[in-house]
Amino acid sequence: MKLTETQQITNPIETDAVIIGAGPVGLFQVFELGLLEMKAHVLDSLNHPGGQCVELYPDKPIYDIPAVPVCSATELTENLLKQIEPFKPVFHYGEEAQVLKKLEDGRLYVKTSKGTEFLAKAVFIAAGVGSFQSRTLKVPHIEKFEGSQLHYRVKDPSVFEGKNIVICGGGDSALDWCLNLVGKAESVVLVHRRDGFRAAPASVTKMKELCDQWEMQFEVGQVTGFTEENGKMIEVKVTGADGVTRRVPMEHLLVFFGLQPKLGPIADWGLQLERKQIVVDTARFETNIPGVFAVGDINIYPGKKKLILSGFHECALAAFAAADYVFPEKRVLLQYTTTSPKLHKVLGVETPHFD
Amino acid sequence: MKLTETQQITNPIETDAVIIGAGPVGLFQVFELGLLEMKAHVLDSLNHPGGQCVELYPDKPIYDIPAVPVCSATELTENLLKQIEPFKPVFHYGEEAQVLKKLEDGRLYVKTSKGTEFLAKAVFIAAGVGSFQSRTLKVPHIEKFEGSQLHYRVKDPSVFEGKNIVICGGGDSALDWCLNLVGKAESVVLVHRRDGFRAAPASVTKMKELCDQWEMQFEVGQVTGFTEENGKMIEVKVTGADGVTRRVPMEHLLVFFGLQPKLGPIADWGLQLERKQIVVDTARFETNIPGVFAVGDINIYPGKKKLILSGFHECALAAFAAADYVFPEKRVLLQYTTTSPKLHKVLGVETPHFD
Repeated sequence: MKLTETQQITNPIETDAVIIGAGPVGLFQVFELGLLEMKAHVLDSLNHPGGQCVELYPDKPIYDIPAVPVCSATELTENLLKQIEPFKPVFHYGEEAQVLKKLEDGRLYVKTSKGTEFLAKAVFIAAGVGSFQSRTLKVPHIEKFEGSQLHYRVKDPSVFEGKNIVICGGGDSALDWCLNLVGKAESVVLVHRRDGFRAAPASVTKMKELCDQWEMQFEVGQVTGFTEENGKMIEVKVTGADGVTRRVPMEHLLVFFGLQPKLGPIADWGLQLERKQIVVDTARFETNIPGVFAVGDINIYPGKKKLILSGFHECALAAFAAADYVFPEKRVLLQYTTTSPKLHKVLGVETPHFD
Repeated sequence: MKLTETQQITNPIETDAVIIGAGPVGLFQVFELGLLEMKAHVLDSLNHPGGQCVELYPDKPIYDIPAVPVCSATELTENLLKQIEPFKPVFHYGEEAQVLKKLEDGRLYVKTSKGTEFLAKAVFIAAGVGSFQSRTLKVPHIEKFEGSQLHYRVKDPSVFEGKNIVICGGGDSALDWCLNLVGKAESVVLVHRRDGFRAAPASVTKMKELCDQWEMQFEVGQVTGFTEENGKMIEVKVTGADGVTRRVPMEHLLVFFGLQPKLGPIADWGLQLERKQIVVDTARFETNIPGVFAVGDINIYPGKKKLILSGFHECALAAFAAADYVFPEKRVLLQYTTTSPKLHKVLGVETPHFD
């Protein structure tokens, strides 16, 4: 990006650091930067902190956070948010980082899907496995109904009242929407490829009761096609395990195949990648672009294990390395939170009596 | 060590792993090994778990354990002990590892100060800054009174009843023993190099009150010599800030200059060292001796920061690397505690319903 282009940046947010990803590792990056007195803005394409852990397993126990014998992803996230509170990070949820460029003056330019622009001295990519997108139904040409008759998420449930609905999937989202729409929709048909569910057993039991009472219907099979009339989908074709294809009339098709992480725009930023992961060194966790660091599941180096606790370590070393860009004049020393009055000041706690 | 020497090993404890050091990192090493189904014995020269943190700052808050906004070293240690409980580690406290040798059959031989012998497939040195030893009084020839009239720790306080005592130091140990012995000893003189103390302010206040009441005496200065008569120390020479040396008659001298970590026998094991730290790689955290790993503050590699959270990461990668020695036939895969029924089994927890 040329300096002439820089001049076209309007009203950017100037900050020490931009962190891409508000999962556990992105959140802890705020802490490690904060201890070294660097301020951070945090982006996430999801609408909440906690990243894939909270998205996939909000309530399931995690046992391998050091010194935390057991916690849920939600608790982990809450504790990290509490820990970083003293550093007052600014969060930008529901915004995907789309552009990352190094300017001629050395600063890093970041632009999000909502048009928010940043000029930062260091950028930390803590994007986990990428940004989450719904897994789509693989039926030729069906994508043209997305947003009208084909839905991967529910924005306004009232749209489905009095309508004939087909719901695909076997997880909690699919089952929950079946139970929710029965009685409101004209008809509800659940389509899942097998008679076995990832959803909560109680939901499955309830769904089967509703089927027994003819309140809804369950078909084992997969949607393999559709019939169109006057630009509208009027039925889907459901192919069963027996190879027979049945026609199911419908007005709305809801598909809940789960979320799939995509590397997305990150792939276009000129970063050295290896099997969709960002190559970093193990002393600084820096990418091939100076000032751009990658921490957590998205990076790769010899010995890498995708563990949250490894991400925490990477945050610490990356923060020290970033100080080279944020404080080029200053020598940054390691101090301990137990004993350093300076760290107590930045943490906003009282310095205890020192023995 | 030759095989002939191996035959002289009597009754060794055979185990997958020996961990040297029961500080936070040594304790977490048990966890990471346990997840991969490796059993560990843990040695520490101290008589308790928690290492230098508990030794130096048992109650002071630590703020930088990820996802633990604040905890004391004691709490950190308790949580880690709870976390590793499912893996039933065997602890050997008060035993310093003195010998480490690789046998011809590839196993590692460890012998402690108490004569306990181990044959292990992998050894993890998590010895922090080394084993703790009392800082000694630097007065020529005074060491010959150690254990008789010169004491660096108190085993039996009744020895000092009715005696003339000089206590050196300015920390909690020195002040606590002053307060404790006043009234029991014939006389108590505290000697500290300056009129300022690391000890708790309440103890200092109390000590000064006792001085005002002539119950004890405080001298600013340092012990620089002693007078011997008939093989006994009869007085110490205390040189004050004014350069004047005073003679203080005494029968026992108690010195509390704090604990000093020493690398100790580790320096003789043939490990590649750099500034008293053990050189490791960052993929396996393995030393130059195959099967011997070093984790936590005792190791060194490019970018190393002496942080507990870095030690945790090192434990995880070292455990995976150690599996090469413990299970040479098996391919060990990364599994997640949140979702793996196998890990739930080793952790002794119920596998939750999987969504």
